[in-house]
Amino acid sequence: MTHVLDQAIALTPLDANRFAGATHPAYANMVGPFGGITGAALLNAVLQHPARAGEPIALTVNFAGPIADGAFEIEALPLRSNRSTQHWNLLLRQGEQVCASGSAVFAQRRETWSAHEAQPPQGMPAAAALQRLSRHGAPAWTNCYDMRFAPGEEPFRFDGQEQPHSLSRLWIRDEPPRPLDFAALAAICDAFFPRIFIRRRKPAPIGTVTLTTFFHADAALLAAQGERHLLGTARALNFRHGYFDQSAEVWGDDGQLLASTHQMVYFRD
Amino acid sequence: MTHVLDQAIALTPLDANRFAGATHPAYANMVGPFGGITGAALLNAVLQHPARAGEPIALTVNFAGPIADGAFEIEALPLRSNRSTQHWNLLLRQGEQVCASGSAVFAQRRETWSAHEAQPPQGMPAAAALQRLSRHGAPAWTNCYDMRFAPGEEPFRFDGQEQPHSLSRLWIRDEPPRPLDFAALAAICDAFFPRIFIRRRKPAPIGTVTLTTFFHADAALLAAQGERHLLGTARALNFRHGYFDQSAEVWGDDGQLLASTHQMVYFRD
Repeated sequence: MTHVLDQAIALTPLDANRFAGATHPAYANMVGPFGGITGAALLNAVLQHPARAGEPIALTVNFAGPIADGAFEIEALPLRSNRSTQHWNLLLRQGEQVCASGSAVFAQRRETWSAHEAQPPQGMPAAAALQRLSRHGAPAWTNCYDMRFAPGEEPFRFDGQEQPHSLSRLWIRDEPPRPLDFAALAAICDAFFPRIFIRRRKPAPIGTVTLTTFFHADAALLAAQGERHLLGTARALNFRHGYFDQSAEVWGDDGQLLASTHQMVYFRD
Repeated sequence: MTHVLDQAIALTPLDANRFAGATHPAYANMVGPFGGITGAALLNAVLQHPARAGEPIALTVNFAGPIADGAFEIEALPLRSNRSTQHWNLLLRQGEQVCASGSAVFAQRRETWSAHEAQPPQGMPAAAALQRLSRHGAPAWTNCYDMRFAPGEEPFRFDGQEQPHSLSRLWIRDEPPRPLDFAALAAICDAFFPRIFIRRRKPAPIGTVTLTTFFHADAALLAAQGERHLLGTARALNFRHGYFDQSAEVWGDDGQLLASTHQMVYFRD
């Protein structure tokens, strides 16, 4: 059985740089697909492109317009390859309409001096000691993840009591479990609920406009994580005039930083 | 007299989406131009494009290869315009070669509930109480800024004693002074010295690979800042296998967050 994530990001080559894909009902969001699965599909186009060299270090996805349920086409265009890095331009179209655009940078990693500067969030209970998030009426994609929030940091405490922060910490993995790789990690980087829900403790119409993810790990480090829960943490800097940012980090359960991710989100109040 | 920043980002329309520009010696870096001025020129192509709607909220610049001194061409392609947002694809070429690529998101801002979550760095002495950075042999572009670092956080303390962090705080403005706008702010977002210099207290060959900036302010808030110093702060999360990230924030002197910016940087050791 192919894992549902792999079904959702499956692409068929059309010519040198174009691939055919389709939305998958398991990753449906309120309107159109979960943005994380769109980002994973765009990254997957590069991952399976015959000209690809190295591993992803950065992915930017701009959500230009709604994606309708059904078929789409991805264009992954290699712009330039150097000794260390390779630059890609990405477009997702339905018919003539651009629905998403973006870019990816792939790179050759090599042994160097390395250092952790950031530390993983402290005081998080073990995943096994926490309850899996379950919410009646939540969009389909949330059921593709096992998410376990720190006590008091659950995302749907909608009592309207504004908090002074929008921090949350959680354990997260694909459901059903699946070995971690770049596509799965790219999708998880968009699985953090909108910070305005946390900050204001009430729902609001929102939409991610642009998302940039940096990959801090190589394929071997991701493979070593296996199917175990990842530790995620997210917060915002600023909410102003219809837009807010959110930044998140994804850590392996051994304390290694795997990805950091930043997005700008449209909101109405 | 046109300010040197405006000289350096000046573009001449070639056709609907293409503009001619050139590198400026005042913004020369070790090799090629300062990345911030390249980002500002790319943003400027959208700012002066007749189809432009709204103000920038996000800019991604991928540095695909070296830019030689001399002429370049920028293509700014509007991919899609919606009621709230407008998505642009950006390319900078010299001859047939792509030297930089990227994307910009412009948006209509409007009055909504707003909130500051992050706070500006505390304990920073007034700009007037600090000495302007001056370093013999530093690249030309550094002279286009007045930078005043917090005591003990100067970037060139090259004693080789590795620190446990790469944090620095500084006051920064264009030199000569120039009223703040989006192009100037975009350039300043790349003016933070490479975090590996701070962390290891020694120089290393580095190159920014990709840079994403989020704009948290509208044109009115930038104009209100005038020519005064901005408060900047930068840090890294992780250095590993030839790449590190750095994140920075730029604040107005009234405590308003104006921009946050994130980059991945190649290094050798």
